[in-house]
Amino acid sequence: MKAAFYKEKGRFTIGEGQKIQPAKGEVRLDVAYCGVCGTDVHIYHGVMDQRIGPPQIVGHEASAVVGDVGEGVENVKVGDRVAVRPLKFGEQHPFDKGFAHVGKNLKFIGIDSQGAFQNSWTVPAYTLHVLPEGLSLQNGAFIEPLSVACHDVKIGRVKARENCLVIGGGPIGTLIAFVLKEKKANVMISEVNESRLEMLSGFGFAVVNPIKENLVERVSQFTNESMMDCVFEVSGSTAGVSAMTTVVNVRGRIVMVAIHGGGPREVDLFKFFWSEIELLGARLYQEDDYEEAIRIAASGRIPFDTLTTQIRDLDHIQEVFEEIDNNPAGMKYLINCQE
Amino acid sequence: MKAAFYKEKGRFTIGEGQKIQPAKGEVRLDVAYCGVCGTDVHIYHGVMDQRIGPPQIVGHEASAVVGDVGEGVENVKVGDRVAVRPLKFGEQHPFDKGFAHVGKNLKFIGIDSQGAFQNSWTVPAYTLHVLPEGLSLQNGAFIEPLSVACHDVKIGRVKARENCLVIGGGPIGTLIAFVLKEKKANVMISEVNESRLEMLSGFGFAVVNPIKENLVERVSQFTNESMMDCVFEVSGSTAGVSAMTTVVNVRGRIVMVAIHGGGPREVDLFKFFWSEIELLGARLYQEDDYEEAIRIAASGRIPFDTLTTQIRDLDHIQEVFEEIDNNPAGMKYLINCQE
Repeated sequence: MKAAFYKEKGRFTIGEGQKIQPAKGEVRLDVAYCGVCGTDVHIYHGVMDQRIGPPQIVGHEASAVVGDVGEGVENVKVGDRVAVRPLKFGEQHPFDKGFAHVGKNLKFIGIDSQGAFQNSWTVPAYTLHVLPEGLSLQNGAFIEPLSVACHDVKIGRVKARENCLVIGGGPIGTLIAFVLKEKKANVMISEVNESRLEMLSGFGFAVVNPIKENLVERVSQFTNESMMDCVFEVSGSTAGVSAMTTVVNVRGRIVMVAIHGGGPREVDLFKFFWSEIELLGARLYQEDDYEEAIRIAASGRIPFDTLTTQIRDLDHIQEVFEEIDNNPAGMKYLINCQE
Repeated sequence: MKAAFYKEKGRFTIGEGQKIQPAKGEVRLDVAYCGVCGTDVHIYHGVMDQRIGPPQIVGHEASAVVGDVGEGVENVKVGDRVAVRPLKFGEQHPFDKGFAHVGKNLKFIGIDSQGAFQNSWTVPAYTLHVLPEGLSLQNGAFIEPLSVACHDVKIGRVKARENCLVIGGGPIGTLIAFVLKEKKANVMISEVNESRLEMLSGFGFAVVNPIKENLVERVSQFTNESMMDCVFEVSGSTAGVSAMTTVVNVRGRIVMVAIHGGGPREVDLFKFFWSEIELLGARLYQEDDYEEAIRIAASGRIPFDTLTTQIRDLDHIQEVFEEIDNNPAGMKYLINCQE
């Protein structure tokens, strides 16, 4: 069987993988599709080598078919089509307050251990969610990022008819916008790439390019001066952080989705005090987010085909990562991992 | 009648005030005591001249006796002892989402209009809360800052047995600590002034001087490694902002009490994402905060006498402000405004 190995900064190689028979409580999957996450791109750029320990098989946005089940597995059976929630829960710590998905001892499967860019993948059975009929394996690869979006919207406590702004219209920002639409919120997306703006506008979303237009004025018009009830900072940019506090209303929520690593960012704390606004960190997902993502995906209301920029076989993974670096308008790239 | 006028940076003068007869819905008060707020000190430093428009009578932490009532006033009668909630609500704006206490058109009485550093003060009747028997007028001057503390703790959603850190042990931080004690939370206070630390320790609070000790280690010990469930940033310092994200646990709340004006502050946004922590802005108070503050004050469990650094007559207001600037260990200074 085949596997893609991240070898070093800027380089994947294809090699022989190992079919690992499932131990007690585990399942061996025949991987179908696996999306490329921004984190995989970071790995490809070499900035996470210490955590990864190359050579390593990465990838975690996977759909798959159950190949073999280990002893005691009852939630899935051979032949089931599944999405994987790639979290290996560690020992509980009082610091975690019961939130295992962000716990001190959490291990992320596909980063801290072998991922899905291979034909066969063995994971704990509790990570699996069965895909309903009518949801293809290809679109099933969207369940992981869509669960992120569901989690973010849940953390933002968004209600029907609320005004929401998504800062950053990449794959996660766009999926957040679609989940907000499911909640019957009024959605606007701020994005700087014109091709993405065109696509998002085509989906029916109000859009704004903050480089060309005055964001605060556009938000004021869009909301009849009531401004935003909830803002999602997904851009990871200093401009996004500066903008987020300028567009929320009293008790408005700002959901911090982006990973602002590499040091602190300048934040207008006075505005937090003045209008009693909230900043809410959101990371990964919980079980119910997967269930909601599967429900939304199965509804057929998310245009996965348009969001899928490209699908390539495992053999071409190197080219895919090279293209991602050169295509700021790209959305989701899928790797077909089937033998 | 007598009034203290803020004239210009660093200068109060005593002059003749005006007894203003109450219009419909208003009440004329005989002011008893009025505390000096940090905001009054800012005014004294000249940094708010544009908003104040000197000469102006300031002061807003007042207790008083009802002197005259205007037409239609039913909530108080002549002779009632009251605390004043110095908020004049303006026209509602959709931006406010119903939160009038932080509304766009809110005017703060004692800053945007005449305050309580005078013998007689005329205010809207709806700003008044009757003091119960057994709560003195002197201690009644603490109701305003104690309501701030009640509001902050409410915003922090603190529950019994939670671990809480107050960063900054001045008057507001100390009152927050006492309200937390009422909620049966485990409280630690971080403060850099040794005299204050001694007083706070004498009240039975766990204390830490982050200049002399390792704050993170002390918090870890205090909480058996579970770290803080809720942190109150009251210091207004960059050190406080750096510290706040290092001591909270998963889904921990940080309540932003301090007024971080004069530009953005550096905040570790990665930590917000990683542990799903929350930053919650808190400003002023609502009606129920006043009710709670009065209930707590009347319980006799807050050592107001020890917290009262000094009481001086209106004639000596200039000396009080001069002393405050020279006494970083001071807590609450009261002005006796009685004729």
